[in-house]
Amino acid sequence: MNTERRIVQMNEPVLARNSNMAERNRLRFQQHGVTAVNLVSSPGSGKTALLERTLVDLRQELRMAALVGDLATENDARRMRQTGAKAIQIITGDVCHLDADMVDRAYDQIESEPLDILFIENVGNLVCPASYDLGESRRIVLLSVTEGEDKPLKYPTIFRDADVVLITKSDIAAYVEYDRQTAEHNIRSIATRATLFELSAKTGEGMEPWYGYLRALHNRHSSAGVGV
Amino acid sequence: MNTERRIVQMNEPVLARNSNMAERNRLRFQQHGVTAVNLVSSPGSGKTALLERTLVDLRQELRMAALVGDLATENDARRMRQTGAKAIQIITGDVCHLDADMVDRAYDQIESEPLDILFIENVGNLVCPASYDLGESRRIVLLSVTEGEDKPLKYPTIFRDADVVLITKSDIAAYVEYDRQTAEHNIRSIATRATLFELSAKTGEGMEPWYGYLRALHNRHSSAGVGV
Repeated sequence: MNTERRIVQMNEPVLARNSNMAERNRLRFQQHGVTAVNLVSSPGSGKTALLERTLVDLRQELRMAALVGDLATENDARRMRQTGAKAIQIITGDVCHLDADMVDRAYDQIESEPLDILFIENVGNLVCPASYDLGESRRIVLLSVTEGEDKPLKYPTIFRDADVVLITKSDIAAYVEYDRQTAEHNIRSIATRATLFELSAKTGEGMEPWYGYLRALHNRHSSAGVGV
Repeated sequence: MNTERRIVQMNEPVLARNSNMAERNRLRFQQHGVTAVNLVSSPGSGKTALLERTLVDLRQELRMAALVGDLATENDARRMRQTGAKAIQIITGDVCHLDADMVDRAYDQIESEPLDILFIENVGNLVCPASYDLGESRRIVLLSVTEGEDKPLKYPTIFRDADVVLITKSDIAAYVEYDRQTAEHNIRSIATRATLFELSAKTGEGMEPWYGYLRALHNRHSSAGVGV
């Protein structure tokens, strides 16, 4: 398709520059002993709610902070700061994803904090963030039970590279006639190497395995232990 | 922000070319007496479900067809064809929006159909489609009750240009503690000229005012009647 080819070609220098900056970020995180986790999803899948609960529940065990991308508003960073954690809002204007440059500059503001895990909440978008490495260790894709079981098939690029797929809002699964078997089949057919969790940040159900994953991720990075 | 400026500058020739093609589409639709309606939303807000029900319920009154954009799969066009309506799938690859060129080529395939309304279901994305005029008469933004009341504030560009905001999945509003007052306040503060409907394509509640809007839109175009 002509339009598509044109856009991809135009983006090539931008993507190459981003990859270089992402490698710099990765090195910087490594030097500081920080594990960076990039969270991507549709708008409204519950990224902020997940992080709010995680920042509270694990605050005795892990030192955590968040960088939060949005086109507009400081709302999400404000919500997260109420947990006591540091949170930096990145306003992207009309840009539909974070890039490594934005993450670099936001991280400057909390670089002196001793951290175990840095959450990077991307702009709500199932397309654009797929192409932009931020220097993260793990990429987590959230999919709420209300969005439809076909989404991994319709947005394959972002699911293909997922290290984890988190099915969120499990508390309303019955009301929306969520078809778990079909959804998981579709996820596994695209996100072939992903670990799968189903949880509700609202009721707390299913949060413990997710916390276990984060603990193991931190231990792995701090002691070169078993990979997750 | 440097990155943002760079991307916007790069897109300028693409956007200018798109605007020209959109004007051509608009003229073509006008000549054929077709009202084109561009539907945009997050993935999973219920665009396809809305169209499936609309295509069935209004088929005795209006001649309708759909162009459907997705990164991958023919699923949505297939779902719509089961209603008996013509539906053309546009596969965008990794492109996060439809453009006027894609619409032009897809419309070629149904140009000979006598039509009153052509629905154009955009790629599920609250950012990219905002910048791409397709030649439509009306732009409809869907927001499901599960996505959070803050979305108009966080994705202002797409809500600002909406002619209609459709709040979808009203049947599960109570389960997700949907705050109607806050949501409508936020929508009205950004989408200042939009007409607002709340409905459920699943139960059928609230569909009648939406149908009334479509009837009036068609009458307006076919007889230069009162604007909607």
